[in-house]
Amino acid sequence: MTTLSIIDGRVLRPDLTVTAADVLIDQESGTILEIAPDLAGEADETLDAADSLVTPGFVNGHCHVAMALLRGYADDKPLDAWLQEDIWPAEAELTGDDIRVGAELGLLELIKSGTTAFADMYFDVPEIAAAVEQSGLRARLGHGVVTVVKDDEGAREDARTSLEIAREYAGAADGRISTAFMPHSLTTVGSEYLEEFVPEARDAGVPIHYHANETADEVAPIVDEHGVRPLEYAADRGMLEPEDFVAHGVHVDETEIDLLAEAGTGVIHCPASNMKLASGMAPVERLREAGVTVGLGTDGAASNNDLSMLDEARDAAMLGKLAADDASAVPAEAVVDMLTRDSAAAIGLESGRLEAGAPADLAVIDLEKPHLTPRHDLVSHLAYAAAAADVRHTVCDGRVLMRDRDVLTLDEAAVRERALEAADSLVARAE
Amino acid sequence: MTTLSIIDGRVLRPDLTVTAADVLIDQESGTILEIAPDLAGEADETLDAADSLVTPGFVNGHCHVAMALLRGYADDKPLDAWLQEDIWPAEAELTGDDIRVGAELGLLELIKSGTTAFADMYFDVPEIAAAVEQSGLRARLGHGVVTVVKDDEGAREDARTSLEIAREYAGAADGRISTAFMPHSLTTVGSEYLEEFVPEARDAGVPIHYHANETADEVAPIVDEHGVRPLEYAADRGMLEPEDFVAHGVHVDETEIDLLAEAGTGVIHCPASNMKLASGMAPVERLREAGVTVGLGTDGAASNNDLSMLDEARDAAMLGKLAADDASAVPAEAVVDMLTRDSAAAIGLESGRLEAGAPADLAVIDLEKPHLTPRHDLVSHLAYAAAAADVRHTVCDGRVLMRDRDVLTLDEAAVRERALEAADSLVARAE
Repeated sequence: MTTLSIIDGRVLRPDLTVTAADVLIDQESGTILEIAPDLAGEADETLDAADSLVTPGFVNGHCHVAMALLRGYADDKPLDAWLQEDIWPAEAELTGDDIRVGAELGLLELIKSGTTAFADMYFDVPEIAAAVEQSGLRARLGHGVVTVVKDDEGAREDARTSLEIAREYAGAADGRISTAFMPHSLTTVGSEYLEEFVPEARDAGVPIHYHANETADEVAPIVDEHGVRPLEYAADRGMLEPEDFVAHGVHVDETEIDLLAEAGTGVIHCPASNMKLASGMAPVERLREAGVTVGLGTDGAASNNDLSMLDEARDAAMLGKLAADDASAVPAEAVVDMLTRDSAAAIGLESGRLEAGAPADLAVIDLEKPHLTPRHDLVSHLAYAAAAADVRHTVCDGRVLMRDRDVLTLDEAAVRERALEAADSLVARAE
Repeated sequence: MTTLSIIDGRVLRPDLTVTAADVLIDQESGTILEIAPDLAGEADETLDAADSLVTPGFVNGHCHVAMALLRGYADDKPLDAWLQEDIWPAEAELTGDDIRVGAELGLLELIKSGTTAFADMYFDVPEIAAAVEQSGLRARLGHGVVTVVKDDEGAREDARTSLEIAREYAGAADGRISTAFMPHSLTTVGSEYLEEFVPEARDAGVPIHYHANETADEVAPIVDEHGVRPLEYAADRGMLEPEDFVAHGVHVDETEIDLLAEAGTGVIHCPASNMKLASGMAPVERLREAGVTVGLGTDGAASNNDLSMLDEARDAAMLGKLAADDASAVPAEAVVDMLTRDSAAAIGLESGRLEAGAPADLAVIDLEKPHLTPRHDLVSHLAYAAAAADVRHTVCDGRVLMRDRDVLTLDEAAVRERALEAADSLVARAE
């Protein structure tokens, strides 16, 4: 057994109390052995956490990491025009190499902002999986299926690709990669394909992840055509199980909130994307009151435009209050749970809590900053004031991915250089 | 003449184009002499800006810097309960030394996040002015008047203090400090005091700054008592002149928007504070369309909880879209103007633009970051993706306040240490 000890820090426990302690980790199993004072002497390797907060690694429940290559490519447009005029044409030009470097760029940003696990929907998933394997992060990956712009053969091929990817990559990268079947949304995949392939996904034992109720424009066509709300429509097609999770859930009514709570299906709230695309305000306080597990996601960098989960936490606390018209709604404590254990639970991972036996996925945050001074309440600081650059170290599966801001698994300067070149070439091709 | 040259950067010009150029500064007058390639050879001192964006320093149009000491002291409460149960009782315990260290802590954060000028309303203003003088920043300072909880003598004394401070400190710190008469709000200062002291402020030649239309609860009492909207009430009392500026302006109707536009009175939008206190969404797109000058402010750290104007820019872009129900509203370009020249114009400063003859107030942002890669659009990056920690250098009035993240005018470690002690002592006294 080789061990790592995170020493002299203040450790954020699952009940959100903070205690001065070391964290002893078994690197072979990638789990936490013990959290207690003075464990440094027992460890093979140590990581300094003096004047720092040791938190569970953040869990990004909905992302398209490779879209980091499209950061700032097109902004300030409504979802539909933005996708059709800018994003889809650019994506049509992306090569496998582009996806790989875009993914590496996104993963660098995740590591540098303390995120240790994420769920991702995109295409060319083998490229993304290879980047994840190299990065040391944990991920639930899937191929996004869109059938509405394809003929029947193309549609079936797309759905089969998503199923095959879900089967093939489950358990890859020493178990750090898990998968899901990922129909893009309830309006971009025809009902006949959902009816055919969702049961196959169930048989394969993979969860299902999709965008749902993101904009008002997505709700109306389903109500018009099928006479039920989108999540009733999803439930009728077997897509609302405890292992499934939906992104957004902005325009959900009371019936759908009850359905989600009864089904145990998690919702990934993406406040920055929902604001930037003027999609609306998800009823986060109401969802949580009803017992729905609400996680947090950044969505892609093109609609955010960063992948820092600390930004997302602050946005979620603030937007949640506005949505509820109540400044006591979605308090700091709720947001910290959403950022860590609730996001993990929603996407079916065990991480997001620091206790013996849990996965050794964590971030160490430097408190010696003016904007984190004084220290009336460290949970408040995590929700409202801490920023990506405050993260000193990132550890996933017991392995140090970043030490003192230096990423150890990816070559930061080389990835940035390749991304600049790939972006220039992409723009030249797309124009 | 001693000169400073910011060399090898990409310079954000007033028309929001970006050009490769050096910026030559006359340090004695504190103004920009020239922006052109290859000016390094002429300068006494240089500041490297390779792979960096040189932007106007950010202008924080509404702040209470000393409240940095109360960061995280109380969160997740509505404005009224938060003020009455937590903030005012804590503020009643603040000593002059607390105000000084709170201000220094806030100023450190401003410098480290690229802000070069701010407007501030608080009490014990001489302590704040001393901190500003030491910091090297530019500020419009004022003493906030509250009469509703005082007897007539106390109310008059408070208003007189605000006027005296405004007269005494105008032009202090070699002209870096300007002032305003600052009645706290239209509901916390009795109309008889506005009627008596506003003309005195006009005679003294100082502008007037106050909170207005922040919450719906502030609007109703004025409509009920006076039969007009709050900004009509303010105009009737001579408080809506081109040099005046109001904070918030969340609940303004069309009549008030027209009034602001005709009067030339600026509005300081504080999106983070408005979200965190669930105050509502200011109609920023509508205000700008009507021709109102809209600046940006962080408000105090207790309702934000940081003082980074880059966070505020991102929040303004996102919330502005949600308020307008239009993803094309408040685009990146608008937000960058609000962050710089519009905020400066609103509070009556000449800064906020990089051109010959303008004040040498600027920030240099390191672009060599994963979250600022690739570089499709640097204006988009400034609005949506850049963060406080990306600021390398901060220059105000031609003087380098921060070089490579090292603040030169304040002792960062000492201020943080004193702030921790002051906060502990304050909590012990307030309980």
